[in-house]
Parts: sequence; C-alpha cells; structure tokens
Amino acid sequence: MRDGAEVDWGTIMRVFGIDCGTEFTGYGVVEVEETARTQRLRPLCAGAIKLNKKDHTPARLARVYSELTALMEMWEPQVVAIEDVFFAANAKSALKLGHVRGVAMLAAANCGLAVAEYAPLSIKSAVVGYGLAAKEQVQFMVARLLDLERAPEPADAADALAIAICHIHHAQTAEGLRR
Amino acid sequence: MRDGAEVDWGTIMRVFGIDCGTEFTGYGVVEVEETARTQRLRPLCAGAIKLNKKDHTPARLARVYSELTALMEMWEPQVVAIEDVFFAANAKSALKLGHVRGVAMLAAANCGLAVAEYAPLSIKSAVVGYGLAAKEQVQFMVARLLDLERAPEPADAADALAIAICHIHHAQTAEGLRR
Repeated sequence: MRDGAEVDWGTIMRVFGIDCGTEFTGYGVVEVEETARTQRLRPLCAGAIKLNKKDHTPARLARVYSELTALMEMWEPQVVAIEDVFFAANAKSALKLGHVRGVAMLAAANCGLAVAEYAPLSIKSAVVGYGLAAKEQVQFMVARLLDLERAPEPADAADALAIAICHIHHAQTAEGLRR
Repeated sequence: MRDGAEVDWGTIMRVFGIDCGTEFTGYGVVEVEETARTQRLRPLCAGAIKLNKKDHTPARLARVYSELTALMEMWEPQVVAIEDVFFAANAKSALKLGHVRGVAMLAAANCGLAVAEYAPLSIKSAVVGYGLAAKEQVQFMVARLLDLERAPEPADAADALAIAICHIHHAQTAEGLRR
C-alpha cells in the first residue's frame, strides 16, 4: 500500500525547546522520525546558557539572544517550543523572567520560526503522564524517552528537551485528529 | 575665560527614552545642548509603536524590536533611558510587560547603547518636581520643558520624553558632583 498519497513515510520534524530562566536558560533540540508504524525520538543537542550576574540586564539579554539565534541557525528546527508561565513567585521575578522570554521569542520570530507555548502541567503530562510530577521524574523520563543513559545537565537542559517532547506529542495528537 | 580646558562649550547629549507597554510602546528623543551658562532641551521625535492584539506575541515583539532598532539607528542617541518597574498589577501582566522591556533593552544593547533605568517616582520628580504627580501634570510639564504647544500624543510618547528628560537631569547632577 505504498501509494504515498495518504501516508507520509519517514516524516521528520525537528523541535527547538527552550526553558527560560533568569540565571540559566536551557535549550534542547529533538528530532522525531515518524513512519506509519514507528516513531523515533532523537536528541540532537542540549545545554544551557548561563548568565553572568555581574553583567547588566541588556548585556545578559544580548547574550541569550545571540546564542539562541546561533543555535537556531545551526540546527534549523521547524518550530520553537517554550514553557508558558502563569504563576511566578511575584511580579518582580515575573518581570525578570519576561525579559528573557521576550528575547527568546524574538530570536525565534527573527529566525522565521513559529513559537508554541505549553503550560508546565502539559509538559509534565506529556513526558511523565502526570501533571504534578516532580522535577526528578521529568528528568528520568526525558532520559528514557530519548534513550540516554542519564538526563543531560543542568536540569534546565533536560527541561528544554521535555518541552520539545511535549510539542512533538501535541503535534502528533493534532495530526491524528486531523486524519 | 575661554580657555576651554575646564569648561565644555556646547556639549550635546542625545537621549532615547522608551516607555514600554504591552499595547503601546512610547519613544521620544531629546537633545540637550549645554554650555557653561545655559541649557537647551530640544525634542527630536516622539511617537508610539501600537501593537496589534491579533498578532502572536513573537510577531509583536519582532515589530517592537525592529522599529526601536530603526529609530535608534536613525537618531543615533548616546544612551537609552527606560522606566524601571517594581510594581505591576500581577505576575501575569508583569511577565507580559517584561517581554516588551526585554526586547527594548536588547535593541539598545545590539545598537551598542548603554541603558539607564529610572523608577516612576524619579521620572515624575525630575519632570514635575513631585514624585506622586498625576499623568496630566507630567504631560503638561513635558510640553513646557520642551517648549511645545502641547504634549505629544499618545500619552506613551509624552511619557517616553519624560524618561529622556529624567536621564538628562540625572546625568547633569552626576556631572555636577563629579566637578
């Protein structure tokens, strides 16, 4: 039944996940190769941009922007997935997180990439199957889903991979419903 | 006494003020020509970037970034002044304001410009002489200090000019103390 009209053989999607933070901003790229019968997740890179507290905010933001832009240009993802934030400790920390998030979304927009946002609950549900899962469970499952011996460090890098995986699951569900 | 060694004749400083907002982001450029005896403030431009609520956040941020960058390149200020925000209605609105603020500071950093932040209280004190002044008083004084018939509209543009004026006052005080 290889008529090819209705079934995509070997569709590949590459997702760039970002876990924004005022100290560490994690990133991770996950590729999914999907055939009619199987699906294979492959981690391409993961890491974190550590910001120097001594730098002024504009310099820190310029660093996040240039590093994310360089990574997006290098890995050429189709989409960027980012954590949506509703709750923050207070307005001041929300503002600071907003600075980094704004710059991350700008990097995606200026690379011509769409941005998908996912609530923390959705990300944990997608990866662990339980929205209130602990941080360690998320890391454990990220390693398992990506066939890694252990989750990448720092935790922000693993969280970024979790966000990318969450997008892949959601995209597949949307695609399944569409079919 | 025109020996020129200790007195700067005709020092010119150009300040780019930004009043960040999730709907309107005001901007204004003020030039100050300062001699040993006189000081003249001159508004060069003022306006506001209106964001389309229908656009996604990354597209809105890309618009703010590209417009601010173009304006900074056109007006070639020496410094960017921005309102510092400590209080926000809630964490969610602080996060959204943070997105715009982060992108505005990034535009300054990527244009090689230093960013000075001023609290709302300082801005009102600098312009009206009273930290708890009403919005209308600020607009009235902006028009008066810049010798304009009326304050520019929307109010965000006038606020951006007020932030630039605040920086000029602070820079002068710092310079006076240094001497």
